Amino acid sequence: MTAIQSDAYGKTRVRLTYVDRDREPHQVRELSIGILFEGDFSAAYTHGDNSRILPTDTMKNTVYVLARQLSWDSAEVFAQGIAKHFLDRLQDLLKVTVDIEEIPWQHIPGQNAAFLQSGNERRTAKLRASRSAFEASSGLKDLQILKTSDSGFSGFLRDEYTTLAETDDRLFGTVLQAQWRYLGDNISFNEAHRQIRRVLLESFARHASLSVQHTLFAMGQAVLEQVGDVSNIHLVMPNKHCLLVDLARFGIDNPNRVFVPTDEPSGYIEARIVR
Amino acid sequence: MTAIQSDAYGKTRVRLTYVDRDREPHQVRELSIGILFEGDFSAAYTHGDNSRILPTDTMKNTVYVLARQLSWDSAEVFAQGIAKHFLDRLQDLLKVTVDIEEIPWQHIPGQNAAFLQSGNERRTAKLRASRSAFEASSGLKDLQILKTSDSGFSGFLRDEYTTLAETDDRLFGTVLQAQWRYLGDNISFNEAHRQIRRVLLESFARHASLSVQHTLFAMGQAVLEQVGDVSNIHLVMPNKHCLLVDLARFGIDNPNRVFVPTDEPSGYIEARIVR
Amino acid sequence: MTAIQSDAYGKTRVRLTYVDRDREPHQVRELSIGILFEGDFSAAYTHGDNSRILPTDTMKNTVYVLARQLSWDSAEVFAQGIAKHFLDRLQDLLKVTVDIEEIPWQHIPGQNAAFLQSGNERRTAKLRASRSAFEASSGLKDLQILKTSDSGFSGFLRDEYTTLAETDDRLFGTVLQAQWRYLGDNISFNEAHRQIRRVLLESFARHASLSVQHTLFAMGQAVLEQVGDVSNIHLVMPNKHCLLVDLARFGIDNPNRVFVPTDEPSGYIEARIVR
Amino acid sequence: MTAIQSDAYGKTRVRLTYVDRDREPHQVRELSIGILFEGDFSAAYTHGDNSRILPTDTMKNTVYVLARQLSWDSAEVFAQGIAKHFLDRLQDLLKVTVDIEEIPWQHIPGQNAAFLQSGNERRTAKLRASRSAFEASSGLKDLQILKTSDSGFSGFLRDEYTTLAETDDRLFGTVLQAQWRYLGDNISFNEAHRQIRRVLLESFARHASLSVQHTLFAMGQAVLEQVGDVSNIHLVMPNKHCLLVDLARFGIDNPNRVFVPTDEPSGYIEARIVR
Repeated sequence: MTAIQSDAYGKTRVRLTYVDRDREPHQVRELSIGILFEGDFSAAYTHGDNSRILPTDTMKNTVYVLARQLSWDSAEVFAQGIAKHFLDRLQDLLKVTVDIEEIPWQHIPGQNAAFLQSGNERRTAKLRASRSAFEASSGLKDLQILKTSDSGFSGFLRDEYTTLAETDDRLFGTVLQAQWRYLGDNISFNEAHRQIRRVLLESFARHASLSVQHTLFAMGQAVLEQVGDVSNIHLVMPNKHCLLVDLARFGIDNPNRVFVPTDEPSGYIEARIVR
Repeated sequence: MTAIQSDAYGKTRVRLTYVDRDREPHQVRELSIGILFEGDFSAAYTHGDNSRILPTDTMKNTVYVLARQLSWDSAEVFAQGIAKHFLDRLQDLLKVTVDIEEIPWQHIPGQNAAFLQSGNERRTAKLRASRSAFEASSGLKDLQILKTSDSGFSGFLRDEYTTLAETDDRLFGTVLQAQWRYLGDNISFNEAHRQIRRVLLESFARHASLSVQHTLFAMGQAVLEQVGDVSNIHLVMPNKHCLLVDLARFGIDNPNRVFVPTDEPSGYIEARIVR
Repeated sequence: MTAIQSDAYGKTRVRLTYVDRDREPHQVRELSIGILFEGDFSAAYTHGDNSRILPTDTMKNTVYVLARQLSWDSAEVFAQGIAKHFLDRLQDLLKVTVDIEEIPWQHIPGQNAAFLQSGNERRTAKLRASRSAFEASSGLKDLQILKTSDSGFSGFLRDEYTTLAETDDRLFGTVLQAQWRYLGDNISFNEAHRQIRRVLLESFARHASLSVQHTLFAMGQAVLEQVGDVSNIHLVMPNKHCLLVDLARFGIDNPNRVFVPTDEPSGYIEARIVR
Repeated sequence: MTAIQSDAYGKTRVRLTYVDRDREPHQVRELSIGILFEGDFSAAYTHGDNSRILPTDTMKNTVYVLARQLSWDSAEVFAQGIAKHFLDRLQDLLKVTVDIEEIPWQHIPGQNAAFLQSGNERRTAKLRASRSAFEASSGLKDLQILKTSDSGFSGFLRDEYTTLAETDDRLFGTVLQAQWRYLGDNISFNEAHRQIRRVLLESFARHASLSVQHTLFAMGQAVLEQVGDVSNIHLVMPNKHCLLVDLARFGIDNPNRVFVPTDEPSGYIEARIVR
C-alpha cells in the first residue's frame, strides 16, 4: 500500500508590474509571486478527481485582480490580501503560503516617470497563513557587499590538510541573504525594510571582523538592538573568496592590491539570531 | 539580550572531476559537493574565537584527498566517507550534511577515453549524519520530460476568475525532481538510481493523466511498487505550460500541432509518497 | 548633423513547440526563432513614421501561422519559408535574417508519445536572405565534450610570466560550437547535421592532440574531407581547464585521477577551415 | 585540400578585483578581461607546432602583473597597456583585441572601506590594436530602464496576421546596450562615460516616443550633440514587453495599472548613429 504523506500545489513566478499613477511622481513596483495551497486534495492525486482543485491558472488571474482591487503599498500587505482571499472562499484549503520577490526600481535622477532597475538585490516577503494563524517574514537577498579593511581570519583549527594562511587583513565579500520575523502585527513594512537594510550595511562596514561567523552575528545583533519590531533574524553569508594574487614569483610585491574574485567554491555561513 | 538559535557553516560548490583509469574503458565522474557542519561553534559567532573552526578551505582540500584515498563508486558512498572522516576527528562536530550533485558524462559512442555531457539532468545524493545515526537520500533533478498524448485536465473547481478551458488532450511537460530514501542500508546505489529513473520515465509516459497531481502520484506509487529498497519518495513536478496557439483568428486550424512553450508562470506540484 | 549609418529591427526568442502527429511515432521539435529586418526604415527612426514598420508582434504571429502552413522538416527549411514570406510581401524589406536554435528532444526509450530533453546542446540554423541571394549556415553549440587521453601541450613560447608546466597527458574539455556553410543547395539538412556531428565527435576523440588549436584544425579538416556538401566550417573551442589537484603536499600521489573543473578563466580558440 | 581562412586564440573571463588604497577613501574596481591574439600562428593548427604560441595561462598572469605595474584609472587605459605589452614583445602577433567588462561597485553610504555592487549594469571597453593603428570603443550594457508615460506605437503597417492594437500610452522597457567610439585620442574615459550615461538616461526619460526606433535615434542623437568627443554610437534596445492585463473580462477596469512583464519573445532594435 502506498499513500500521500504530504502534498502541496500552486503557481510560481507570477510576474506583475504595478504602476501607481495616483501619486506624483509615479511609482513602479515589480513583483514575482508564488502561491502554494495545502489542504484536503488527496483525491486529485489518488483518483484524478479535480473537483476540489482550483486551477493554478485561476490563482494567476486572481493575483492580477487583487493587484487592482486591494489597497496595498508593500509586498507584505499584498501577500496578506492574497492569502485572505483564498482562505475566505475555499473551505478545503487549510494553509496557504505566499512568497513574493520584489525587483527594485528607482527613479532616473530628476525624472518623474522613468525608472532604472537597481540591480540584483531582491526584497522578499513570505506569508504562511491558516484560518487560525499566520506567520509573516520579510527579507532581502542577492545583496553583494565587500569590505576592504577590518577583516581577518586566524587562530583556527588546523589539521594535516590545512594549508590556509592566517591573515589579519583580507577582503571580505558576501552575497547577503536576510529574513526576519516581527513582534506585534502593526508593522510599517516599507519603513522596517529600509531601516533593517541600513543597519545590516552599516554593521557589516564597521565591524572589526575576526571571521564571517563573527560579523554575521554582529549584524544580526545590531538589527535586534536597533529595530524594536524584529523578533528574530536569519542571515546567510556565503564567503565569496577574493584571492590575493601571488606576484612574488615574478619579483613584484602585491600589498593587498590585486585579487582574483571567485564564484566557486564558496564558504557558507548561516545562523538565526534571536532575542 | 541576543543569542544564536541555530547555526551552520561549511563549503559549497567544491567541484571535482574523477577519472577512473583502473578499468577499461575509462570512467569520468564530475561532482559538485557541499559540506555543512553543525555543532558547538557559538564562540566563533559571539567572540570571534576560531579555535574550534576548521577552515572551509580545509574541507575543500579534504574532499580532494578523500576522492583519491577512499574506495567509492557512487556519490552516496563518497558522501558517507566524507561524513565519517569529519565526525571521527572533530569532537565539536555534532552533525554533518554532505550534498552531492553529479553531472552525468557518457562515452562518445565507440570511444573509450572521450566523453559527452548528457545534459541538464543531475543525479543527487544527500547524507545527514551524526555520531549515532545517519539519513541517506538519493535523487535526480532538472530532468525535462514531455508527453504529447494521454493528458487532460477537466472537472476542476471554477470561480468567477477561472478562464481556463477544460481539455482532454494537452501537452504535459515538466522538469522532474525526485528524492527518495531507502529501506535497509545494503544498497547498490548506482543500480537503484538506474532502476528508479527508468520506472519514473515509464510511468510518466504510460499514465492516462487526469492532472499533474494524478500522474505525480502514479509515478511515486510505481517506484514504491517496483523498487523494494525505497521507503518513500518526494516528487516535484512544475507544470511547464505549452500553450496551444490560437490560429482560428486567422482562419487556420491548429489540431494540437503548434504550441508556445513558456517558462513562467509555472504550475507547481509536489508530494511525498510513502508505503 | 547626425544620421543613421545602419539599423535593423525584429523579434527574438519566439518559442515554438511543434508536434508532428502525422507520422508514427510522434515527433516533437522545439525551436527558438529570431527574425531581423533590414531595409528602408529610416523615417521611423528620425520622424517616428511607422507606416513602413511591420510590428514585431506580427512577425511572431506569422511564425506560428507558417509553422502550421509550411511543409518543413528541418529548421533550415523553416527558416527559408519564413524569409521568403516576408521578402515576397514587404517591398521596403531588403534583407532578412532568420536565426533558429533547436532544443533537441528524444523519445523516452520504448515510448511513442513521451520525450526527454537531451541536454544543453543546441542545433542552430541561420539564413541571411535578400531578393537576389541567400546564405544558409547550420551548426551546433553548447556541446560539452572531454577527452582523458591523447592530449598534451608542450614546446610553447615562454616569457618571464610563464608558469604553466609542459604536459604530455592532460584532460582536454571544451564546449564545442560549430557553424558550417554548404556547397550547392540541394541539401538534406537533417542528414548533414547528423553526419557532421558524428565526424566532429569522432575526430575529437581520436586525435593525438598537441594543443586545442591542433585538434580544432583536425576536426574541421575531417568534416571537409568526409562531408562533401560542406564548403567551410567555423569552430569555437574554449579550453575548459580541468586542473590536476596537487596532493603531493599531503604526501599523496595523484596520477591524473583527481581534477578541479573550472569555468573561468577559460582559453578561447577559434578558426574557420576552408577547402 | 583544406586550409585555415582565419583564426584567433586567447583567454576570456580573467577576473580581477583591484583595491586602490593610495587614495582616501579606498576605491574598488572589478573587471572581467578577455584577450584575443591574431597573427601568424597557423603552424600550431596544422602541425601542432606550439613554438610561437604564448600560453593563455601566461596571458592571465600578465594581466595580474600589469594591473599592479601600470598606472591606470579606467578600463580603457588598462586595455591599452595590455595591448601595448603584447605587441611590443611578440613579433608574430599582428593584432590584439582586449575586451573588458567592469562590474560597478559603490561605497556603502558613509563608509570608506565598504562597498555595494550596484547591479546588473556593466561598463565595457574594447580595444583592437595592431602595431600601426588602434580602435577604442567604450560602452555599457544590461542597463534596465522603463518609462511609464510618453510612449505610444501606432500608424504601423498591418497585414492579415497583425493583431496588435494601436496605443498612445504604453509602458516602454528596455535593457540598454550602448557602444561608442571617440574623436581624437586625449579622452577622459571615466568622465566621458559618466556624461554619456547621463545623456542616454535623460533623453530616454524625456523623449515623446512614437516607437522604440524613434527613441533610440533620439538618444543617439542627444549623445552626439551633447558630447563632443564621440564620433558615433551603436545602440541596442530590445523591447521588453510589459503587457496590460485584461481585467475587463472580470468586470474590472485597468487604466494602465497592472501589467505582466515578459522576457520572451522580445522586440529587438539596433542602429548606429553617426555625425
